[in-house]
Amino acid sequence: MKVFSVRGITQSGKTTTIENIIKELKKRRYSVGSVKDIHFEEFAIDQEGTNTYRHRRAGSELVTARGHYETDILFPEKLNVEEILRFYNQDFVVLEGVEDTNAPKIITAHDVKEVEERIDGTVFAISGRIANTLQEYKGVPVINAMSDVEKLVDLIEEKVYEKLPEFSGECCCACGYSCRELGIKILKGEAKREDCILGEENIKLSINQQEISMVPFVQKILYNAVMGVVAELEGYHKGSNIQIKVGER
Amino acid sequence: MKVFSVRGITQSGKTTTIENIIKELKKRRYSVGSVKDIHFEEFAIDQEGTNTYRHRRAGSELVTARGHYETDILFPEKLNVEEILRFYNQDFVVLEGVEDTNAPKIITAHDVKEVEERIDGTVFAISGRIANTLQEYKGVPVINAMSDVEKLVDLIEEKVYEKLPEFSGECCCACGYSCRELGIKILKGEAKREDCILGEENIKLSINQQEISMVPFVQKILYNAVMGVVAELEGYHKGSNIQIKVGER
Repeated sequence: MKVFSVRGITQSGKTTTIENIIKELKKRRYSVGSVKDIHFEEFAIDQEGTNTYRHRRAGSELVTARGHYETDILFPEKLNVEEILRFYNQDFVVLEGVEDTNAPKIITAHDVKEVEERIDGTVFAISGRIANTLQEYKGVPVINAMSDVEKLVDLIEEKVYEKLPEFSGECCCACGYSCRELGIKILKGEAKREDCILGEENIKLSINQQEISMVPFVQKILYNAVMGVVAELEGYHKGSNIQIKVGER
Repeated sequence: MKVFSVRGITQSGKTTTIENIIKELKKRRYSVGSVKDIHFEEFAIDQEGTNTYRHRRAGSELVTARGHYETDILFPEKLNVEEILRFYNQDFVVLEGVEDTNAPKIITAHDVKEVEERIDGTVFAISGRIANTLQEYKGVPVINAMSDVEKLVDLIEEKVYEKLPEFSGECCCACGYSCRELGIKILKGEAKREDCILGEENIKLSINQQEISMVPFVQKILYNAVMGVVAELEGYHKGSNIQIKVGER
């Protein structure tokens, strides 16, 4: 699953850029999901007076509205983006206005000043209104998402890598970098996605609460034994977190 | 997690009954979640013209709207109730108008005719408008959820059992019954929740923090796959507690 974000202030062309990108990705036969951050203090998707609104007001802590053609799960809190992405398994996921991520980023902007406020090593393209006046800024291509969407999506295909684990800087660094640092290096062409050494053998074993170190060979055998069964079960998709407990109730 | 449903036609007092039950359960310090089925053909929680609406229209297959105080995950399909319940971990979950479940049931109705159309072995109480005129119907108590909510919630505490796996009739039947049949027997007092023998192998599997129910056959295969490797490792002895995690640190 490849994840990227589009950031920019209101009216800079953010949603239009995303619409065009999604349409083009779909045209190329990818599955696509999206997450939209809403920075409007009073945002509430449910309308006063609906039955689900009445459930929540009475004290229901998690409310689902299920219609004939949709199922809406309404969490009464701001989940972090990693929690949200656990529900996704599309080829590409676009994040709109999401801040708590190190995913590769497209900036939309009116002008250079807005770009300057947002640019960092995670940015691989610039779009939005500024694309009418500029073609490149500090080595980052500026692309019009209306007239040149193919070019922008070519760049997404080229640059956006399989989602990194996004461990906090202190937590893993098994490759020598934080996930953010490795991501920036991948975009620059100084590292590869495969340099993240947490691959499919990312498996941990504890016996009576003591973590057991396993050489890669044993890790691989245990991984294959577990996944040979679990991958066939409903509820599993690639990248799922799996936990198995034996001997405890 | 204990799950029950409230069924009845429009204006029979369904949502009011649920509101009162939720409030009383909360007063008793339980955590509560709810699922509402909307039988209105054109139901769509998202409004035309919102950015998330634009995402979906462009082709996004899973859209999340995240505000400061809520996160709304909008699946573009009718998930089945078992899939929905994987997101829940409250003490009690109330289902409103949900048909694809064998959970214990409260009927709300205007009159005996409506009760007659809906009553079966899964019904443990009757409420709604009919409670103004009747106290019992064919051995099932009729309780007013406005004036007698304590009595109704006492009955919920007494009758509603820890959710059964809800495997289809052909699938498990390891206890000798389908989940529906066992549920009816539990309500009648002819069986106990513990008669559901799933869990005997003492192996538990979670995928993305959601516990996955496995029929005994699958439990056994997973148990053997795991133990075939782990039992050979230093640190293991018979009866050890084992924990395996894949994809997390």
